[in-house]
Amino acid sequence: MTRTTPAGTPLGDTFHVYDTTLRDGAQREGISYSVTDKLAVARLLDDLGVGFIEGGWPGAMPKDTEFFARAAKELDLKHAALVAFGSTRRAGAKAATDPQVRALLDSQAPVITLVAKSDRRHIELALRTDVDEAAEMVRDTVAFLVAEGRRVFLDAEHFFDGYAFDPDTALRVIGAGMEAGADVAVLCDTNGGQLPLGLAETVRTVIDRTGFRVGIHCQDDTSCAVANSVAAVQAGASHVQCTANGYGERAGNADLFAVIGNLVTKLGMQVLPTEAMPELTRVSHALAEIANIAPDTHQAYVGTSAFAHKAGLHASAIKVDPELYNHIDPVIVGNDMRVLVTEMAGRASLELKGHELGVDLAGRPDALNNALAKVKELEARGWSFEAADASLELLLRDEVGGAEAVRSPFELESYRVILDHRIDGEVVSEATVKVHVAGRRVIATAEGNGPVHALDAALRKALVPHLPWLDDVELTDYKVRILTSGGSPRATEHGTDAVTRVLVQSTDHGLEWTTVGVHGNIVEASWLALCDALTHKAMRVRAGVPTGGGLRP
Amino acid sequence: MTRTTPAGTPLGDTFHVYDTTLRDGAQREGISYSVTDKLAVARLLDDLGVGFIEGGWPGAMPKDTEFFARAAKELDLKHAALVAFGSTRRAGAKAATDPQVRALLDSQAPVITLVAKSDRRHIELALRTDVDEAAEMVRDTVAFLVAEGRRVFLDAEHFFDGYAFDPDTALRVIGAGMEAGADVAVLCDTNGGQLPLGLAETVRTVIDRTGFRVGIHCQDDTSCAVANSVAAVQAGASHVQCTANGYGERAGNADLFAVIGNLVTKLGMQVLPTEAMPELTRVSHALAEIANIAPDTHQAYVGTSAFAHKAGLHASAIKVDPELYNHIDPVIVGNDMRVLVTEMAGRASLELKGHELGVDLAGRPDALNNALAKVKELEARGWSFEAADASLELLLRDEVGGAEAVRSPFELESYRVILDHRIDGEVVSEATVKVHVAGRRVIATAEGNGPVHALDAALRKALVPHLPWLDDVELTDYKVRILTSGGSPRATEHGTDAVTRVLVQSTDHGLEWTTVGVHGNIVEASWLALCDALTHKAMRVRAGVPTGGGLRP
Repeated sequence: MTRTTPAGTPLGDTFHVYDTTLRDGAQREGISYSVTDKLAVARLLDDLGVGFIEGGWPGAMPKDTEFFARAAKELDLKHAALVAFGSTRRAGAKAATDPQVRALLDSQAPVITLVAKSDRRHIELALRTDVDEAAEMVRDTVAFLVAEGRRVFLDAEHFFDGYAFDPDTALRVIGAGMEAGADVAVLCDTNGGQLPLGLAETVRTVIDRTGFRVGIHCQDDTSCAVANSVAAVQAGASHVQCTANGYGERAGNADLFAVIGNLVTKLGMQVLPTEAMPELTRVSHALAEIANIAPDTHQAYVGTSAFAHKAGLHASAIKVDPELYNHIDPVIVGNDMRVLVTEMAGRASLELKGHELGVDLAGRPDALNNALAKVKELEARGWSFEAADASLELLLRDEVGGAEAVRSPFELESYRVILDHRIDGEVVSEATVKVHVAGRRVIATAEGNGPVHALDAALRKALVPHLPWLDDVELTDYKVRILTSGGSPRATEHGTDAVTRVLVQSTDHGLEWTTVGVHGNIVEASWLALCDALTHKAMRVRAGVPTGGGLRP
Repeated sequence: MTRTTPAGTPLGDTFHVYDTTLRDGAQREGISYSVTDKLAVARLLDDLGVGFIEGGWPGAMPKDTEFFARAAKELDLKHAALVAFGSTRRAGAKAATDPQVRALLDSQAPVITLVAKSDRRHIELALRTDVDEAAEMVRDTVAFLVAEGRRVFLDAEHFFDGYAFDPDTALRVIGAGMEAGADVAVLCDTNGGQLPLGLAETVRTVIDRTGFRVGIHCQDDTSCAVANSVAAVQAGASHVQCTANGYGERAGNADLFAVIGNLVTKLGMQVLPTEAMPELTRVSHALAEIANIAPDTHQAYVGTSAFAHKAGLHASAIKVDPELYNHIDPVIVGNDMRVLVTEMAGRASLELKGHELGVDLAGRPDALNNALAKVKELEARGWSFEAADASLELLLRDEVGGAEAVRSPFELESYRVILDHRIDGEVVSEATVKVHVAGRRVIATAEGNGPVHALDAALRKALVPHLPWLDDVELTDYKVRILTSGGSPRATEHGTDAVTRVLVQSTDHGLEWTTVGVHGNIVEASWLALCDALTHKAMRVRAGVPTGGGLRP
């Protein structure tokens, strides 16, 4: 079977990391990949060193047919083999003349994964045929494709439910495929209802009874897809199907990054090229970007919070020995330990945080003390730097001073926002700003959907002619929290008479950064966060690092 | 131990569903509960029927001290026992005179969970003491608290790592606590590095070697927290610690809803009152709302996509027999197979909800259908009634009409809000409202800290002379969430150009009620929620029930 063994995977053919982001992952609500997206996803997965990339269902989905056509010309895979997904032939027909089977061959993919029903209820109710014909559909299609020189994997759909209901039918279907030349019988928990102890036992039993090479494909309906996949490997499966970030239908699939993280760091298996492991975090975020889904900050291994500790209680202990408080060294997967600066901030955690942001406070006890005092004072008034690294960085650089000090790219004279709920029911927002920028006084007025939008629009109108880089900066998220005047987020006697904390997330399409503003007036709080966002960008423009770098929201 | 056995849990004391959302869940980046939030969370968890609610760490966190003080007066728990979390006494001291231990007693919580280090490396490096003293710290503190009449659970921190490194130390620490009178030795995977097969084996071994009652507490760093928790129960643990929606530090904790879903629907355990199961989805979303975190649409069991199928391959087969394509009937957990904007978008649940709010829809199919259509239409535009019962009640009464119909106590002609950031740096908000009330046209202008405050002040100034009861109404909380124009809570291309949802919580010092408003303009959204709040109060004034009753936010 060496003809289609992935060339660059470290375990050769003995273990398969199989990605189905482009087919099963695309079933997630909200994902709609273009063909170009799909090619970009395939390249990233290949860079990572996965063994197999399932590209879609040629024939059934026109976009997937096009993907395989373009992939054959444009993709130059270093590690992975491309896989076409499809179904066995129709009941009562011949594989050789089934147009859907033909489309699989036409895709030119060296590997074909055939889905087959292995649950008798599905055979009878959905296929409307009997077990004899279901087995023959599998045998005929596998034999035909193998004779045509393709490597074939068999996805046994609804295997675990089917095996529990009628084990003989389930085993007969996979037997028909394996005897006809399929390489792996992939046991699928299609409805996602399995738990790891039971699933591992079934996998072990199937391997014992059949001797087949077994794979695993799990859905996350019990929140156990990753655990089930790893348990299956521990039980003898040597092929694991995952999707990037667990994208998939319903609750999703097994997350590729968590499965790899577990196999490598917990079970000591070398399933990716060594140099690929520190790319996990970057690739996960890049794949989220392509899917147009905000990365899950709390994702295991690769989330920006995966190694974030709230400071205080453990901060000094973490400084002594971070290994005691992390399950792995985050560097292994290309992630970082982060210390969250909260109400309980201390010197140690602020110094650690400065180091993370590239501001060296270690040799500057005065600056560190002043910064700490300022953070505490601001936090007492409702500021929170936990999720606003960019504002914290500006504060720290200010305290260090000298070359590190940061100036705002403009000065405000005044602004005015007018909101009208008119007699005809229409609601109108208008803002006027008066600012000094590049030595000039500029006045600009703009309308917006709401007060902050109008203010943002007026500010851009005033500044962009003088600061053209501002055009790249976009707001991507805006969060509001109401606090008491004392600053602690607790109920107040007068809900509208309170302090407002605004978090603004910005992007210049290379970097994302988050800033914070706090004020009794929500518009002024937003204004402060907006100003920090622009100042942070200006700092990077001046330093010649307009985009890129390691800063995270 | 009957003194603190949760009264209303179905398995009595034989199995513990233990929630630590308010302590360990609050460690999640971005969560910052007010004391009022914490009380609301505790009420929702108690409604659900969990056995234990860990409320925080009194003494260490001033907010938690206040929570326990208010809980003792204000919380009337039906099912759950309240738990205070804290540490064993300091090394070299006495439990009886340790102020932190004293604060645990002062909290008046009937149950105390003590965290103790069970990993020798942590004992030596973080506690800077030896195993003898670590065991004595546990023994002394447990014995003292038990003598004071408290039930004690022991959280053995870093247990699994500690047990792997030095099993004798780990067992000695939990032994010291259990022999001194602790009821449960909770084995904690504090760093979250465990996988289910190995974890289950350790749990089984510990139970075999000690005979102790064992609990489990898992973090999600391998994406296996739910699987590990369930595997531990299968291995003999009879106490499981979870957080709502898996909130927690780093990758989070075991998700309460997935763990309950698995225990009940997969293992057949009755761990919640039967009537609580269909509340899982609603409570999950309400808890997300309080945490001010967008619900995870792909969350197992309770996510809005958890039973959503993309059309195509299975669409017609699903129509024939949905049970073949769902791992459980979604109704069991209060979810629905269709893609729902909310769990309430069904006739039966809306009728039930109406019943709960005192609006009889049972004999009024037209009103029910119209209300359902209206709820669906509003939800598609970003409204959410999950946490806004008062607005929903107004909507339902409107549809029923007749005597049930509710009128606003005033009519708006127009309002204008002006915000000035003046040249001297001062920020001023001023609002003018023109309204019709009690047959008169009234114009009033007021200033405020921000636009909503100014508007609220102007409205009160206009109305109070004519509606004196309005003087009792105060806003106690105000929450803002930014949504895309489509209404789904995810990032948008332009953070300030989006739809805003505002939740307003009001009180008349007898009752609290929550209303919702949605608009592109945050001030108009706030206005809509304010108007609903006053209308709801007016309705009760007219009906002669100015305060009291069971309505909650």
